[in-house]
Amino acid sequence: MYLDKINKVGDIKKISPDHLNILSNEIREFLIEKISHTGGHLGSNLGVVELTMALHLELNLPKDEIIWDVGHQSYTHKLLSGRKDGFDTLRMYGGMSGFPKRRESDCDCFDTGHSSTSISAGLGLVKARDLMGEKKTIVSVIGDGSLTGGLAFEALNNAGKLDTNFIIVLNDNKMSISENVGGIPKYLNSIRTSEGYLDLKDDVYNKIVGTPAGDSIVKNIRRAKNSIKSLMSPGMMFEEMGVVYLGPINGHDIDAMRKAIKEAKRLKRAVMIHVITEKGRGYEPAIRHPARFHGTGPFDIETGLPKKSSKVSWTNIFSTVMVKLGARNEKVCAVTAAMPDGTGLKRFYNAYPDRFFDVGIAEEHAVTFAAGLAAGGMIPVVAIYSSFLQRAYDQIIHDVCLQQLPVVFAVDRAGIVGNDGETHQGIFDLSFLSGIPGMTVMAPKNLWEFSDMLKFAVDFGKPVAVRYPRGPVYEGLEEFRSDIVCGEAEWIYREEEIALFAVGSMVETGENVRKILDEKGHKASLINARFVSPIDADAVREALRCHKLIVTMEENVRSGGYGEKVLDLINQERLRDKGLDADCMIFALPDSFIEHGDCNKLKEISGIDAVSIANKILERF
Amino acid sequence: MYLDKINKVGDIKKISPDHLNILSNEIREFLIEKISHTGGHLGSNLGVVELTMALHLELNLPKDEIIWDVGHQSYTHKLLSGRKDGFDTLRMYGGMSGFPKRRESDCDCFDTGHSSTSISAGLGLVKARDLMGEKKTIVSVIGDGSLTGGLAFEALNNAGKLDTNFIIVLNDNKMSISENVGGIPKYLNSIRTSEGYLDLKDDVYNKIVGTPAGDSIVKNIRRAKNSIKSLMSPGMMFEEMGVVYLGPINGHDIDAMRKAIKEAKRLKRAVMIHVITEKGRGYEPAIRHPARFHGTGPFDIETGLPKKSSKVSWTNIFSTVMVKLGARNEKVCAVTAAMPDGTGLKRFYNAYPDRFFDVGIAEEHAVTFAAGLAAGGMIPVVAIYSSFLQRAYDQIIHDVCLQQLPVVFAVDRAGIVGNDGETHQGIFDLSFLSGIPGMTVMAPKNLWEFSDMLKFAVDFGKPVAVRYPRGPVYEGLEEFRSDIVCGEAEWIYREEEIALFAVGSMVETGENVRKILDEKGHKASLINARFVSPIDADAVREALRCHKLIVTMEENVRSGGYGEKVLDLINQERLRDKGLDADCMIFALPDSFIEHGDCNKLKEISGIDAVSIANKILERF
Repeated sequence: MYLDKINKVGDIKKISPDHLNILSNEIREFLIEKISHTGGHLGSNLGVVELTMALHLELNLPKDEIIWDVGHQSYTHKLLSGRKDGFDTLRMYGGMSGFPKRRESDCDCFDTGHSSTSISAGLGLVKARDLMGEKKTIVSVIGDGSLTGGLAFEALNNAGKLDTNFIIVLNDNKMSISENVGGIPKYLNSIRTSEGYLDLKDDVYNKIVGTPAGDSIVKNIRRAKNSIKSLMSPGMMFEEMGVVYLGPINGHDIDAMRKAIKEAKRLKRAVMIHVITEKGRGYEPAIRHPARFHGTGPFDIETGLPKKSSKVSWTNIFSTVMVKLGARNEKVCAVTAAMPDGTGLKRFYNAYPDRFFDVGIAEEHAVTFAAGLAAGGMIPVVAIYSSFLQRAYDQIIHDVCLQQLPVVFAVDRAGIVGNDGETHQGIFDLSFLSGIPGMTVMAPKNLWEFSDMLKFAVDFGKPVAVRYPRGPVYEGLEEFRSDIVCGEAEWIYREEEIALFAVGSMVETGENVRKILDEKGHKASLINARFVSPIDADAVREALRCHKLIVTMEENVRSGGYGEKVLDLINQERLRDKGLDADCMIFALPDSFIEHGDCNKLKEISGIDAVSIANKILERF
Repeated sequence: MYLDKINKVGDIKKISPDHLNILSNEIREFLIEKISHTGGHLGSNLGVVELTMALHLELNLPKDEIIWDVGHQSYTHKLLSGRKDGFDTLRMYGGMSGFPKRRESDCDCFDTGHSSTSISAGLGLVKARDLMGEKKTIVSVIGDGSLTGGLAFEALNNAGKLDTNFIIVLNDNKMSISENVGGIPKYLNSIRTSEGYLDLKDDVYNKIVGTPAGDSIVKNIRRAKNSIKSLMSPGMMFEEMGVVYLGPINGHDIDAMRKAIKEAKRLKRAVMIHVITEKGRGYEPAIRHPARFHGTGPFDIETGLPKKSSKVSWTNIFSTVMVKLGARNEKVCAVTAAMPDGTGLKRFYNAYPDRFFDVGIAEEHAVTFAAGLAAGGMIPVVAIYSSFLQRAYDQIIHDVCLQQLPVVFAVDRAGIVGNDGETHQGIFDLSFLSGIPGMTVMAPKNLWEFSDMLKFAVDFGKPVAVRYPRGPVYEGLEEFRSDIVCGEAEWIYREEEIALFAVGSMVETGENVRKILDEKGHKASLINARFVSPIDADAVREALRCHKLIVTMEENVRSGGYGEKVLDLINQERLRDKGLDADCMIFALPDSFIEHGDCNKLKEISGIDAVSIANKILERF
C-alpha cells in the first residue's frame, strides 16, 4: 500500500511518479470504504483525487495555500496532509470536519462551506502576501457550479486587473449538486465540446498569417484589442475579463496538470487552469446517481444503496404538497438555487416544467427574480436552505418586503442540521427574517400543519416564510389541526402553572418537557407558537394572567429570536399592569456557532433538549 | 415650451421628432433648476435624458415596463410619466421619492434603490408575462457600474438561456459613483475604444469569406461554436453568455436608440443594447465633478457650489482617522465597494494607494476579500453603508466571524439617513450584526470617541463593527473620554431615579431627554452604551439596583436591537432576584420601513426624538 506511506503533508512527494496512479486508486478505495461507514460527500471527492495529488506535488504546503471552494471536496487534501485517521470520526461530534478548518490543520488556510467564496478569499490572501513581502503560491479551487454564484464573478472581475500571480483551478465536472444551468455552464460546455480546439488554433493562425488578407485581418483585430490569441482561445470569456486561461486539461491526468500548474506559477497574473473531472469517478453508483452521492449517509458498497431506510422527511412533505399546490393554482411556481433534489422540487419540475426555475447557485438572484415573478402576478415559492438564505438577506428586505410582494420562502434545513457543522446550521433565520418589516414567519409542529401552512402561505398575498428542519417529519399531535390564522398561536394543552411556548420542531420537545414536569407534579400548558412574526400577543397575555412561569423554546439563536419578542411583549404588558409578575425563561441556542455532530447530541450540548429544559424549569420550583 | 405639453405618460409621442432635441434641452434645464433647490441625484439624470425619451417613444407605458437599476436616474422618467409637479417636493417628507415607487405611479413597475437588481427583477417579470399569456415589452436599464455586482451577473447567466424577448439597456457612462474598477469595466472600455469596429466587421468578413483559406477558417470556427459573428462582435463576452448584443450606440442620439429598441423588440432572446452616455451632460460642473453631483444638496447653478457650507461629518472624521491609522500601522488597509468618495476613503487611497482596494459595487466580495486579507495577516477596514452591508450578511457570518478574522467594519449611514428613503435607511445593522456570534458591535457618541473606537477596532484582533450616522458629527460631551474597553459602557451622569442607556447618536438625544426630565423634577443617569455586543451586563445590573426605571434608546429597529438585549439581561437578573422590580422602557424605531424626508422629522414621527421620549417617560410618573 502506497497509502501507508502518506502520514504527513509532503509525503506524496516521496512516491515515484510511476506509482502515483496506484496511489490514486488506493485513495479512491479508501474514500469509498470510509464514507460507506460514516457517510459524507463522495462524488465530488472521487472527482478531484488526481487534481489534489497534482496540487500537493507542485506546491509546498502549508507555506503555499489552497482555498477549496465549498470545501466538501477536500477529503483527498485532508488525506494527503496527514489526517488519514480522521476519517474514522468524519463529521462526528468532536471528530474531523467534512470541510476545511483552520483550527484542524495548518494546511487549511481558509474555512469554507458556502459556495463561491474561494476567489475572493484567494485574492485577499494574494494581496496580503504581496504587502507582507512573502513568497508563496495561492490557489483557489472552484467548481463550475460555484462559478454561477455572483460572488465568484465579483471576484473574477477584480482578479482581471491583477499584476501578480494567483492561480484559479476551475474544477469542471459539469455539475453543481444536480445539473448546472445558465449561460456560463453552456459556455463551458461549448469549450469542452470544441474538439480539436488546439488544432484549430494552429490551423487558423497558419492559414491567416502570411497571406495578405490574413496579415491585414490580424492587424485590424489587434487594433480592436481582440488579439488573435484571445480570439482563438477557448477561454476567451475569461481572457476578456483579464484572466489568463489554460486548458481544458484532463483532470485525471496528473502529469498534464502538474505541467499546467508549473506554467501557471510563472505568470504575474491571475491564471485560470480549466480542469475537466468526472464526478464520482471510480465508483459506478456515484457516476450514475450524482445527486444521491453528492452527500450521502452510510451505504452498501456493493449495491450503492443506503444502509438505513430513510424515514419520511420534512423535505418529502414539501415535495408532495408543492405538487398539489401547483395543481390547485396555476400561478404557483417554484424557484431553487441549484437544489432541485435537495429541496424536493424535482417532482414539481416533472409536473410543471414551465413553472419551475433552477437559477444556479445564485440565492440573491433567486430572491429578486422571485420578486419579479410576484410583481408580474405569479406566486413564487422560493425553496432555499436556512443557512444559504443568509446570502439573500438584502434581497428579501429590498426586493420582496419593501414592496410587500407575495413571495413564499420555504426555509429548509432550519435549526441544527448536524454533520455538516457550523457553516450549515440554520440557526439565524428566525432572527433575521422576523426582524424585517412586513415579513410573516411561521414554523409547523408536524406533517399536517406543514401542509396547512404551505397552503396558507401561497394564498397569503404577502411575503411569508415557512421554516422547517432537516430530517424525519414529526407525526405526533395529529389531533391538533385548527385552521391557520395569521398571527394566531395554537393552544395544545391548557393548564395553570407553567406555559410552554414552542416554535416548530420544539413543540415535539415541549410535549416531552411537559411529560417530565408532570412526573414531578407540575402542570404545564403547551402552546404551539405557529407564528414568530407577527407574534400572538393575545396568547401571551392570556398565558401571563394564569401562569407563574412563561417558557419559550426555539431552535434558533437567542438574539433577535422568538423568546426575546415574547419577553418584550411581557415587559410591555407589565408596564401597563405591574401586578403581572409571572417569570419568563427563554430557551434558545446560545449565541455561538455550533459544530458538526449528531443533532440530538448537539441539542443536548446547547441545552435545548427536553431533559435540559425540564431540569432548568424544575430548578425554579 | 415643449415641456408644458408633457402632462401625462405618452404625451411625448405628440411632440414632432424635429422638436425632440429642444425638449431634451428643456428637460435638462428643468432638472438642473429643480435639483439646485431641492438637492437630489443630478449627474446620472442628465446622462439619460435622451435614453429615457427614446424608451418612452418606443414603449407603451404603463403596459410595457421599465425597471431602473438603482433608480436614482429615473427623474426624466418621472417627468415624462406625469410627475412634473412632484419635483417641487422631491425627496421631502410626504413628497415625491427620488427613486421609482410602485405606490407613486403605475409607470413604476418595480421599486429599486440598491444596485444590480434590475436584470433579476426583469427576468421575473418576463417569465410572469409569458406564463400569464400577456404581450408587453420589459426593459431593464442598468449602468456599467451596477454590472460589476454579482447579482447582475447571476441574472445575466440566467438570461442567456431565454427564448423570449427581454431587453437590457446597458447605460454605460464609464462611472459608478466614482470611477469603475475591474475586468468588466476594462472590457467595456475596450469596446468603446475599438474605433471602426463596424468597419472591421465588414472588412474581415469580406476578406475571409470567398478565399479558400477563409472558407475553411469560417467552417472551423463554426465547429468550435464561435461563430464569425460573435468573433467580430464587440459584445462577444455577452454573446458568449447567450445574450444578443447591440451596440455601442450614442446615448444622446434619440433616433439611433429608437432604431435599436425597435430591432431589439423583434428578437425572441435576451438582448443587450449598449448605450454610451455622458454623466452630467449639459451641465459643466456636473461633468467636471461627477462624484459631487452624483447626489447633491441644493447648489448655486452659476458656480455649481453647494448653497450651504457643510459641517464636519462623521465621514470626514473617519477619513481623517483612517489616514492616521494607516501611518501608525502598516497592516491597516482599506476596502470600499465603489464608494471612495462617499466613505471618505479617498484620502487613505492618496496616502497609501497599495493598501487601498476599491472592488466595485460588490459588497459580498468586499467582505470575503477582506477576510482573505485578514487571514493573510493584514488588518482590513471595510467601509460600507449600513443598508448596503445587508448584502454581505452571509459573508460576515461565514467568512469573517466563523474564523474570527480581524476585519473592521466601518458602518457609515447607520440609522435614519433622510432623503433617500426606505431603501437607504440603515436601521437593521445593530440587529443583524449583534446577532452574529463573535461579532463586536460599537457606536460612538461623539467625534473623539469615534476616533478612539476606530483605533480600538484596528488593534482588536477580532471581527468588530463601528456604526455611525450620516450627517454632522456630534461635538458635545467632549469632557467624557475614558478608555475604550471591550464590553464596557460609559457612565456619563449618575443619578438614582431613571437610567438612560443610549447607543451612539442617541447619547446626544439622551442629553436632551435628561434636560427635559430635569425641568420636570426628575433625575436621570445617562449611560453611553458604547458596545451593543457584547453588552455591558455589569452596567445594567448596577443601574437596576438603584433606579426605578431603565430606559434604552437606539436608532435601529426594535427587533433584535439593543433594547431587547438589555431587557433579556434584566429578565435574567430578575429570575435570580425577584426584588429587582425596576421598569424597563425600550425606545427604538418601529419594526416598519421609514420613508424619505428630513431626518429630524422622521425621528419625531418614529418617536425617538428627545421630546417624544421624555414625554413617554413622564407619562409614567
